[in-house]
Amino acid sequence: MPHQSEFDTALAVTRSGATSYDALLHDGWRIGNSVNGGLLLSLLGNALRDLCAPLGHPDPLSVSAYYLSASTAGPAVIETEVARNGKTMTTCQTSLIQAVDGVPTERLRALATYGDLGALTDAVHLTPEMPDVPPPDRCLSSADMPDTFKAAGPFLQRVDVRLDPSTAGWAIGERTAQRGAIQAWVRMPDGREPDPLLLLMMVDVLPPVTFTFGHFGWVPTLELTAHVRGRPEPGWLLVRHATRNYSGGLLEEDAEVWDSSGRLVAQSRQLARAPRRRAP
Amino acid sequence: MPHQSEFDTALAVTRSGATSYDALLHDGWRIGNSVNGGLLLSLLGNALRDLCAPLGHPDPLSVSAYYLSASTAGPAVIETEVARNGKTMTTCQTSLIQAVDGVPTERLRALATYGDLGALTDAVHLTPEMPDVPPPDRCLSSADMPDTFKAAGPFLQRVDVRLDPSTAGWAIGERTAQRGAIQAWVRMPDGREPDPLLLLMMVDVLPPVTFTFGHFGWVPTLELTAHVRGRPEPGWLLVRHATRNYSGGLLEEDAEVWDSSGRLVAQSRQLARAPRRRAP
Repeated sequence: MPHQSEFDTALAVTRSGATSYDALLHDGWRIGNSVNGGLLLSLLGNALRDLCAPLGHPDPLSVSAYYLSASTAGPAVIETEVARNGKTMTTCQTSLIQAVDGVPTERLRALATYGDLGALTDAVHLTPEMPDVPPPDRCLSSADMPDTFKAAGPFLQRVDVRLDPSTAGWAIGERTAQRGAIQAWVRMPDGREPDPLLLLMMVDVLPPVTFTFGHFGWVPTLELTAHVRGRPEPGWLLVRHATRNYSGGLLEEDAEVWDSSGRLVAQSRQLARAPRRRAP
Repeated sequence: MPHQSEFDTALAVTRSGATSYDALLHDGWRIGNSVNGGLLLSLLGNALRDLCAPLGHPDPLSVSAYYLSASTAGPAVIETEVARNGKTMTTCQTSLIQAVDGVPTERLRALATYGDLGALTDAVHLTPEMPDVPPPDRCLSSADMPDTFKAAGPFLQRVDVRLDPSTAGWAIGERTAQRGAIQAWVRMPDGREPDPLLLLMMVDVLPPVTFTFGHFGWVPTLELTAHVRGRPEPGWLLVRHATRNYSGGLLEEDAEVWDSSGRLVAQSRQLARAPRRRAP
């Protein structure tokens, strides 16, 4: 039996009722005070996959999550509900709940539409080219980043990130050439290949684009919507995060993810709170 | 007593229980087979405003709506729920429900976070400039569009739309210079000035960007998330719709809305189904 990847271990859910699941959050996926928000999206996505796959709709097409409180290592319960089961899509809802001093506390609530990515047409009327980024071995590896960054949490060892040098000046104490954008090759260190569930995490794995402004504080996600547009090919993914509107104490951050064939396979946008602390 | 605008009339809700409201959808806001999706967002936004304003959070910061079935003229019920009431924000949920042959049928389900736009900081680290568009009187008025377009529904008379000629070739039978984007000045014909609730509608008032490809069929929204980033100044709004990924029978469509002072006051992204019919 093949060894299970650590990502699939983290995504494991056990059905505990008609529409509820048990899960276990691991401290190894923590960044700052919370389990990585992208991993939580993948976890909820896996429970919804279990719910929607028997309806013929195994793939997340769109997931919109509202982050209510910081998730911590330990047991969690996932509640799910089908809102509408249509011919080509199922729309559903889910919540992630943890007990805090015995009180059930909601961490995330999400709406999602599932379908069958394999049933989509091949038509391409317009799609963005993959950005021109040096190959992974000529990028800045997350493993080589200063210890002050790596101290942010063990999540940084979970994903192999290779930052495009033109968007990574902040990581080596220099002014960043491209402010407001970060690009990187990403893959799982244990060889776990990308699929739609991994894409849900990959839209939130890079450092926040506020780092390119020299603003190194915590940037909590308020809302994140991910659209999965295709089943990715094996190999490296290229992820680009960018903001257009960083103002008023908030920012939107868009992610685009291309697979190794150069196809845009996921897009996301989040609304996040700007960092309150500026020092690393 | 001042005359109530037709937008505010359409948004009227009457509390019918602790967390439920009655509303009436008017045929005058129909486009195609359904009431305009942006108006429905404003309507749900108004019910949530009633719920969240007493908690100190009168303004929508983020609203994510999943469109489940086509809304029709007639009575509707709006159910609401507070998911989390925090110090600076309240996250809530809402559903729009109509009876179909006596069976309650859900039209939209949405998650939203409300706050106080007046309490945001003035900091601007990055924000996009308003696009350079000719003044409204040198743009193509929606009132001058061919009757084949106006036949799509009475909604087209509800909003005064002035299309940037460089993105409107499709409306006069010419090839569009900028494929994948539509820009226009918009305002309410009866002088109703913009506010955060009107912005929720304004992110979905322009024709779909698929028109710039000569694809004139119906483009149903699956999911739409709007972020309101500021209280708009009175006057014309400039709205830009653009897609980057129109493929596989789906497209994402982003909207950006600038107020008359040139400030970006709203952003949105929707996932929509590509048109199946190509003829107008």
